[in-house]
Amino acid sequence: MTAPAVVYRLEIAYEGTAYRGWQIQREGPTIQGALLNAARRLVGEGVRIIGASRTDAGVHALRQTASLSLAALPRRSLSTAEVQRALNARLPTDIRVVQVREVAGEFDARRHALGKRYAYLLEAAASPSPFLRRFAWHVAAPLDLEAMRESLVPLRGHHDFTAFRAAAGRAQPPFCRVRGVHVVARRERVAVLISADRFLHHMVRNIVGSAVEVGRGARKPVWLQELLRGRDRTRAGPTAPAHGLTLVRVVYPR
Amino acid sequence: MTAPAVVYRLEIAYEGTAYRGWQIQREGPTIQGALLNAARRLVGEGVRIIGASRTDAGVHALRQTASLSLAALPRRSLSTAEVQRALNARLPTDIRVVQVREVAGEFDARRHALGKRYAYLLEAAASPSPFLRRFAWHVAAPLDLEAMRESLVPLRGHHDFTAFRAAAGRAQPPFCRVRGVHVVARRERVAVLISADRFLHHMVRNIVGSAVEVGRGARKPVWLQELLRGRDRTRAGPTAPAHGLTLVRVVYPR
Repeated sequence: MTAPAVVYRLEIAYEGTAYRGWQIQREGPTIQGALLNAARRLVGEGVRIIGASRTDAGVHALRQTASLSLAALPRRSLSTAEVQRALNARLPTDIRVVQVREVAGEFDARRHALGKRYAYLLEAAASPSPFLRRFAWHVAAPLDLEAMRESLVPLRGHHDFTAFRAAAGRAQPPFCRVRGVHVVARRERVAVLISADRFLHHMVRNIVGSAVEVGRGARKPVWLQELLRGRDRTRAGPTAPAHGLTLVRVVYPR
Repeated sequence: MTAPAVVYRLEIAYEGTAYRGWQIQREGPTIQGALLNAARRLVGEGVRIIGASRTDAGVHALRQTASLSLAALPRRSLSTAEVQRALNARLPTDIRVVQVREVAGEFDARRHALGKRYAYLLEAAASPSPFLRRFAWHVAAPLDLEAMRESLVPLRGHHDFTAFRAAAGRAQPPFCRVRGVHVVARRERVAVLISADRFLHHMVRNIVGSAVEVGRGARKPVWLQELLRGRDRTRAGPTAPAHGLTLVRVVYPR
């Protein structure tokens, strides 16, 4: 499919609990696979879907962006509202298309993204809420939020993030520009918000896993800066579990 | 079990999705059954659990209150923190004991309750959020909140609520004192909050089902007052689905 006849930009929300992640696989349900199935039932074969972020198994999205390209014009013209309604009617209820726009044929949700924002939710409570168990990592110990904030400051800016990359990382350059990293809290619920031009595999979960070590008092705040400088993938804290992570939004030009 | 040796007052949060309601049944999982199992594994037989509200299948609780009575003192004395920790270790993660207090032997969570507060969550959006699908009733039409508020005002006070009782209602008197009924909204999320000294079976869900008819414009606001006065169980709007309902808290003297 070289020059698509129509390209739609989709904004998609999903609960990742039941999926093996965004990217289609030979086995097991995926978000991309569910969307592809829904789109094919609507307009037939000759459909391509590219997501801005290949979220891991169990990771959620408030607003993932994807490009849906059709090789040929549909038999009858479809309004964006019709595309949204039709896709949602064919999708399981844990995946929702929240917005559809028709865009220029060259739009590619992954290559054109200027950056992404993720939120990692922690629940620092003696007894975790039954309502958050799919969306937050329960950390039994109280967290020192000021220490966590202090530890995260040196990550801002343009750095080699090899230290926070998955052990079996993809063969991509290790440089990212972290535009913002914030820790906000409401009672026992703590969110770590990270915005960057790009992210390495497991980067947010490895940063949060290390920041939690600091928050629990097991490490000093300066530890994260040392890890960053050391560029050694084997020294960071444990990888925080997938279910606490949510892709908040993808940023594009304009 | 006439005079229990120890009585604990439990505050319990649960997601009701996987349960056939509070009350223990011969078949299928229930909240009371899960608590009873957990308590028996902790202190053996001779355990009784009474909940303030017999929530229906699929209904949630932020703070249900229950009395846990032990016929005999446990072999070794247990602090309330130990009881909480031990019950939670034995309970599934969709049920959490959030507080435990030791109370006087005559405490009965059901008979001593002065009232209860419920919240019914509606999502009036074109596409329902994947994160709310277990907790909110998705109503595709926009809702006229002012009309809903107006319709609910006449329910305040002491009335015969036969009109809003389940068709196969329990043989209880039909009088309830509604202390407050409010409609609050944040974007597409609408909550109907109802507080009363007691509730009839399906009362909140029938009231909400009728108020939504008003909110959608299918009925005039005065309709709820007419229903109330008519005392005819067959005329109210559809019963709102269970999964939108949450028991917020139970009120006791002091």
